[in-house]
Amino acid sequence: MRGSRVTIKDIARELSISPSTVSRALKDHPDISAQTKIAVNELARKLQYEPNAIALSLKNSFSKTLGLIIPEIVHYFFSSVISGIEDVAYDAGFNVIICQSNESYEREVKNLHTLVSGRVDGLLVSVSKETTNFDHFKHVVDTGIPIVFYDRVCNEILTDRVIVDDADGAFKAVDHLASVGCKKIVHYAASQHLMIGRNRAMGYREAMRKNNLPFTEEMIIRCDSFDCAKKMTENLLKEKNPPDGIFAVNDLTAIGAMLAIKEAGLDIPNDIAVVGFSNGNYATMTQPSLTTVEQHGYDIGKIAINLLLDRLRADHEYEAITRMIRTDLVVRESTKRQLKIDQATSSPGLSGMKQV
Amino acid sequence: MRGSRVTIKDIARELSISPSTVSRALKDHPDISAQTKIAVNELARKLQYEPNAIALSLKNSFSKTLGLIIPEIVHYFFSSVISGIEDVAYDAGFNVIICQSNESYEREVKNLHTLVSGRVDGLLVSVSKETTNFDHFKHVVDTGIPIVFYDRVCNEILTDRVIVDDADGAFKAVDHLASVGCKKIVHYAASQHLMIGRNRAMGYREAMRKNNLPFTEEMIIRCDSFDCAKKMTENLLKEKNPPDGIFAVNDLTAIGAMLAIKEAGLDIPNDIAVVGFSNGNYATMTQPSLTTVEQHGYDIGKIAINLLLDRLRADHEYEAITRMIRTDLVVRESTKRQLKIDQATSSPGLSGMKQV
Repeated sequence: MRGSRVTIKDIARELSISPSTVSRALKDHPDISAQTKIAVNELARKLQYEPNAIALSLKNSFSKTLGLIIPEIVHYFFSSVISGIEDVAYDAGFNVIICQSNESYEREVKNLHTLVSGRVDGLLVSVSKETTNFDHFKHVVDTGIPIVFYDRVCNEILTDRVIVDDADGAFKAVDHLASVGCKKIVHYAASQHLMIGRNRAMGYREAMRKNNLPFTEEMIIRCDSFDCAKKMTENLLKEKNPPDGIFAVNDLTAIGAMLAIKEAGLDIPNDIAVVGFSNGNYATMTQPSLTTVEQHGYDIGKIAINLLLDRLRADHEYEAITRMIRTDLVVRESTKRQLKIDQATSSPGLSGMKQV
Repeated sequence: MRGSRVTIKDIARELSISPSTVSRALKDHPDISAQTKIAVNELARKLQYEPNAIALSLKNSFSKTLGLIIPEIVHYFFSSVISGIEDVAYDAGFNVIICQSNESYEREVKNLHTLVSGRVDGLLVSVSKETTNFDHFKHVVDTGIPIVFYDRVCNEILTDRVIVDDADGAFKAVDHLASVGCKKIVHYAASQHLMIGRNRAMGYREAMRKNNLPFTEEMIIRCDSFDCAKKMTENLLKEKNPPDGIFAVNDLTAIGAMLAIKEAGLDIPNDIAVVGFSNGNYATMTQPSLTTVEQHGYDIGKIAINLLLDRLRADHEYEAITRMIRTDLVVRESTKRQLKIDQATSSPGLSGMKQV
């Protein structure tokens, strides 16, 4: 039925061994015994076996391929970055292969070795949360394979990088909460040993100061997951003087807080307004929809790969480029408060003011 | 500061060319001119340049690496599958590299070539929605590289595969809606040219029949996204006789329907009960939380990679294995109805029945 071309499977069947053994024997793989190699090669000759196109391409090295290391694929932000990278890569005739470090230093080192020994032309990397030693990256850069870092970058090596203006994003979020009348704004923050944790907390402090809102360091609460935010908010709402605004370090944390507020019978945004960070696909699915900071993951991916392609095309070395990506506040229902009539404006002494 | 070892960057700087040009010149890459190659090699000798460990490993072929093709990384189901695969792979000493087909046949073919020319030992593949020709997979299998298909499998090639019992999952979902008293259940379905679309619709029909609930093919509505479900549900609720139960082909579609129901001022589950399919991380974040079908993505990944590792370790060929994974219904608030007192049981004639 399938024509008479001899395949590796035919050789395997004849010798009662597996096709992968035949394949490795033909490639002179060290795991295969000399005896098997002789048998396979003799039969291949006898049957006039011709390796097909893909088998032949095995003899060439990898090329036109870029490697991508992602901490956690499950996050909407990172999957947007992947889309941006892939769209530009395919248009430029490159393929992209992805490894997930799963936030582990050990896996990141293995990922890097795998990609480099697969002979990728260049690398795009966001560093794992665990990584504090960057020698593995230094070695790769020394071999002449360019790396562009994005989002979580490595400050010890001078390479091209794309970073998000997290402090400014956080500032916009908290400034917005202040502008809709929130007086006691808490920040659910990521670990302060992470750059994004520190930068977003910095933006929070700046906006509080600019708006003359009093705050203490206790109002920056280490809490960056849905479950943590739900419990934390339940506890805060039992206190005498609960917050009237929450700025969460990511959307899932914001959604955990919203669920606790709704379950306590309070109104979002009029009792407590909430802002997240990411603008993931969750943000429009909640009720009320979530005001959040758009990080432009897709654009970050596009900019990162364009830096890498420029580096690959260049015939001379040039200084490392850092691109800072601005964020945008996306205002939705979770901060659209009904304007409350202030005591001052409704007092008799001011009743002469005209409402036009 | 960094010791006196000569690197590719030193050679590049000296010759005013890029490190990647030096790297390719040393590897005798065809893109580099003979003149440059001579200059680079002479300087490398003069400076006593020693390639480092990673550079040396470039000379070895890829090994202990498995390739994974995923249609769309953004889906919770596929990222669970990746986790299952990676956890087993790393324990077994294998690294995993991932390519995303983005539901495109063309990208899938390129992905496959990239992975095979990167010399992966074996492949795990879920087929893109667009793919109808499977020759690219046949060629790879013929070269002796084993493929395990998972979730979206290829029926034209006899290989190991792991599939989800979608029809049974859908049956359980709709049978459950019937058991909580729903009489008019509609199904928001995926395209019927997809296996999962057909299988889940089949489960719907079976459960409707088993429960003697009348239905027409118009109650199987092509609608498989959040936005579509929101609009569709808004329209259905304007009709004279709206449904009292919705079984959606995935969680996001279910959540779109829930949003429209809540915005119409109706109660979930007492006016309309809703069931999804996937048990993604959304399902516990909605209000009410979503009853859904757990697909066990993590386990599917683990089973798929174990089949692949068995195949790689085997010294003889054996028949292709198909593993069917059962789903489980996870009951949450979106179907927990208050038991309505039926007209029959509250009628005077039955008032003598004792409630113990």
